[in-house]
Amino acid sequence: MRIKAGDRVNDVLNSVLRKVAPTAEERKEVLKLHRNVLHTAEIVCEGLRVKPMMCGSIAKDTWLKGHKDFDLFLRFRESTSRENLEEYGLKLGKEIINRLGGTYEIAYAEHPYIRGFFNGHRIDIVPAFDVRNPGRIKSAVDRTPYHVRYVNQNLDRGLVNEVRLLKQFCKGIGVYGSNLKVRGFSGYLCELLIIKYIKFRNLVEDAADWWPGKVIDIEGFYRSEKYLREKKFPGDALIVVDPVDRNRNVASVLSSENFIWFVKKCQEFVEEPNEDIFFGKPRYEMTLRGIAEKLRERGTEFLMIYFAAPEEVHRDILWPQMRKLLKRIEDVLKDGGFRPLRSDIWSDETNCILIFEMEVDELPAVKEVLGPSIFDRKNSEGFLKKYRGKKIFLQENRWVAETEREFRRAIELIRDFLSGDEDELRGRGVPKDLARVISEDVAVADRVHCFRFFRRYPGLRSYMNEYFHRSLG
Amino acid sequence: MRIKAGDRVNDVLNSVLRKVAPTAEERKEVLKLHRNVLHTAEIVCEGLRVKPMMCGSIAKDTWLKGHKDFDLFLRFRESTSRENLEEYGLKLGKEIINRLGGTYEIAYAEHPYIRGFFNGHRIDIVPAFDVRNPGRIKSAVDRTPYHVRYVNQNLDRGLVNEVRLLKQFCKGIGVYGSNLKVRGFSGYLCELLIIKYIKFRNLVEDAADWWPGKVIDIEGFYRSEKYLREKKFPGDALIVVDPVDRNRNVASVLSSENFIWFVKKCQEFVEEPNEDIFFGKPRYEMTLRGIAEKLRERGTEFLMIYFAAPEEVHRDILWPQMRKLLKRIEDVLKDGGFRPLRSDIWSDETNCILIFEMEVDELPAVKEVLGPSIFDRKNSEGFLKKYRGKKIFLQENRWVAETEREFRRAIELIRDFLSGDEDELRGRGVPKDLARVISEDVAVADRVHCFRFFRRYPGLRSYMNEYFHRSLG
Repeated sequence: MRIKAGDRVNDVLNSVLRKVAPTAEERKEVLKLHRNVLHTAEIVCEGLRVKPMMCGSIAKDTWLKGHKDFDLFLRFRESTSRENLEEYGLKLGKEIINRLGGTYEIAYAEHPYIRGFFNGHRIDIVPAFDVRNPGRIKSAVDRTPYHVRYVNQNLDRGLVNEVRLLKQFCKGIGVYGSNLKVRGFSGYLCELLIIKYIKFRNLVEDAADWWPGKVIDIEGFYRSEKYLREKKFPGDALIVVDPVDRNRNVASVLSSENFIWFVKKCQEFVEEPNEDIFFGKPRYEMTLRGIAEKLRERGTEFLMIYFAAPEEVHRDILWPQMRKLLKRIEDVLKDGGFRPLRSDIWSDETNCILIFEMEVDELPAVKEVLGPSIFDRKNSEGFLKKYRGKKIFLQENRWVAETEREFRRAIELIRDFLSGDEDELRGRGVPKDLARVISEDVAVADRVHCFRFFRRYPGLRSYMNEYFHRSLG
Repeated sequence: MRIKAGDRVNDVLNSVLRKVAPTAEERKEVLKLHRNVLHTAEIVCEGLRVKPMMCGSIAKDTWLKGHKDFDLFLRFRESTSRENLEEYGLKLGKEIINRLGGTYEIAYAEHPYIRGFFNGHRIDIVPAFDVRNPGRIKSAVDRTPYHVRYVNQNLDRGLVNEVRLLKQFCKGIGVYGSNLKVRGFSGYLCELLIIKYIKFRNLVEDAADWWPGKVIDIEGFYRSEKYLREKKFPGDALIVVDPVDRNRNVASVLSSENFIWFVKKCQEFVEEPNEDIFFGKPRYEMTLRGIAEKLRERGTEFLMIYFAAPEEVHRDILWPQMRKLLKRIEDVLKDGGFRPLRSDIWSDETNCILIFEMEVDELPAVKEVLGPSIFDRKNSEGFLKKYRGKKIFLQENRWVAETEREFRRAIELIRDFLSGDEDELRGRGVPKDLARVISEDVAVADRVHCFRFFRRYPGLRSYMNEYFHRSLG
């Protein structure tokens, strides 16, 4: 699809850039600090077999105005032991922050690293292995320096603002970031897309026609898109082969929802280029009355499970655990004869809520158990023995036994499922960290009682607006 | 299983026989009339190419005390046209009844026949083709004379009382009769079982160990029971190869429920031989209060559909039509998202009631439509077009559209389905004769309103007792 709006689109993009590209002054100041950090690191590491390297968007000159995070990588020789890497990584990091006159804390990802603060900036000092082949990394961060180098070598300096437009576009529509909460577009992915499409405008025009299963292979590593789509990365909505590691899809974390949302928003932009799309509408918080009306209108029962987010658990662990628990409880509900209509999770990363909108949440006292075919004597005898004394009848030549239902309401079933100590919960498939907090305290609320949560969390009220109104269609 | 009760069983059987075998006097009188009827028929048919023959249980001396029905067959040559058979069949029948000094009416099965009344007896005068090979019948009744002949040749005269015991046993437990209401044991089937087992007692002992798929092939037509069970008569609970037509299962109309009930009752009799089993307990009519309590206890919604039985429709047509309609409405309910727990039919052949006990009878205003995979572009585009403007989201990489539900209550859906004229109803799969009566008048009652029917029909109150309490286990 082509943008028909002619020059208007340039006006829009220029206006956006004025808002999001760092000013010459900001740039000068940040780059000065940036050089300073690197210089300090080089002094600290002098004589050691550790090579400092600046990574992150500032190192690639693709950062957005106001962004204040530096990433300093300390690259250890590949033969270094993990213990030494962790020990010296922290030591050197602390030393660097001290020399910069900042403060620090120890943070944890795959391994511990130093998170420092100085001059109003944040700086992550990350130890990594200087692997010779980015396809054979030893820790999750080892590939990053290769990404920085690739971008710096392949992204024309004149195109950094195109990256900024794309990043801001993704932010505006809510799909920027590759953490497991957002499951959106990473900065590196944005950079690769501009390397491929050169101009933001070209990308948007092309993306308006994208369809799930879209393949981008900048370096032309593969001949067959079909192979990438069906064998190598099946189920991925967008496949962008990593130029530094052909076995990796840079967009693997991007959810299908976000891919489709991005395409939809590109279509909107092509139809009618406008600035608003880059900055999002202010999130609309529904009123309690508005929510109540909507629930009444839908005639569904809402169930919510509240628990506190486990402390010191990284959000890249929290979100997958919440999603896993959601799926587990959905299955438990279905096994119990109930029907969830939709379910989802909300969290501000301090409070966690699982939401179940029920199609069927209450059932009769009696239930039927379908047995084997009457012609299958062995299994029939087992079935008849098991249900001796119950009412037994046939349904199309299969045995049916009538028994009593243990839980007539979905809420009772959930409460039963979530009761018990940590080990019991884990035994039932509740993920580790959530089992701990849930065994300590959990609240299961029905439609009436979930208003407590709507009242308490404005973020949940905004979320409900999306829940009811956002459509991918 | 062997009866352990020793001589007690003989006492029981003798006592039963005293009640159900015709007395010498009754027998003498009936057989005299029987000979008289045949003699009259022979006079009327003299010189014609029509051979009269007495059929039915009186002709086989296996009738139960008080049974007053004669079957007189008029056997026309195989080359006779159907028109001639019908025309002369009626003519001759009327003439015979006139000579006997009785009255008559014209009745209809596959073809019309004369039903006469004289001396307090009923006599069906049925024209049939005298086919040379009972495997190649031209009308449904042509096989009957062969059955009579086979029984008279193979059932030892000393064993007729064993047949009577078996017939009465089947009556007592409610499985006697091969019409499509009862779907039980026909008289011929009872006779064949005694030809096979000689003694009622042997049969009962053996049947206590029967299992669905039981094969009896008296004439040894087939080598493989497996073949009969899996290829020739799959799904039949009892297979009794017809000695006069190897391609027919005499027990094909017997339902699996009745087969299992018969076996269960044989087990009971073997465990503790007693007379009561032959005469059934008086059917227990639940009180309205009893029914109400049971419904409350179960917590289910009951829905009943009432309509008048179509007049002049044979019950062998009524029952299958009711069963077909029941199945059709079950499917409609399921398609609508509702879940019937159990369903059944009740009728006194004047009033018809379809019963649905619902597990889920009420649903929210919103409903979800699951679409194709997002990777299937062609179907996705169709789906998105169809649900444009609706809320669209994803569920595990499949499209989902949220729409409004047309009928939130099962009763509304049923009322809608049953509204319209006869043609519309037939178009929706309502069987012919029922479509006619339903288009004229039908009532759909919920749990509260179905008490009207419980109040009105004592038979329905007895039926509810079985519905709740009878078990095959």
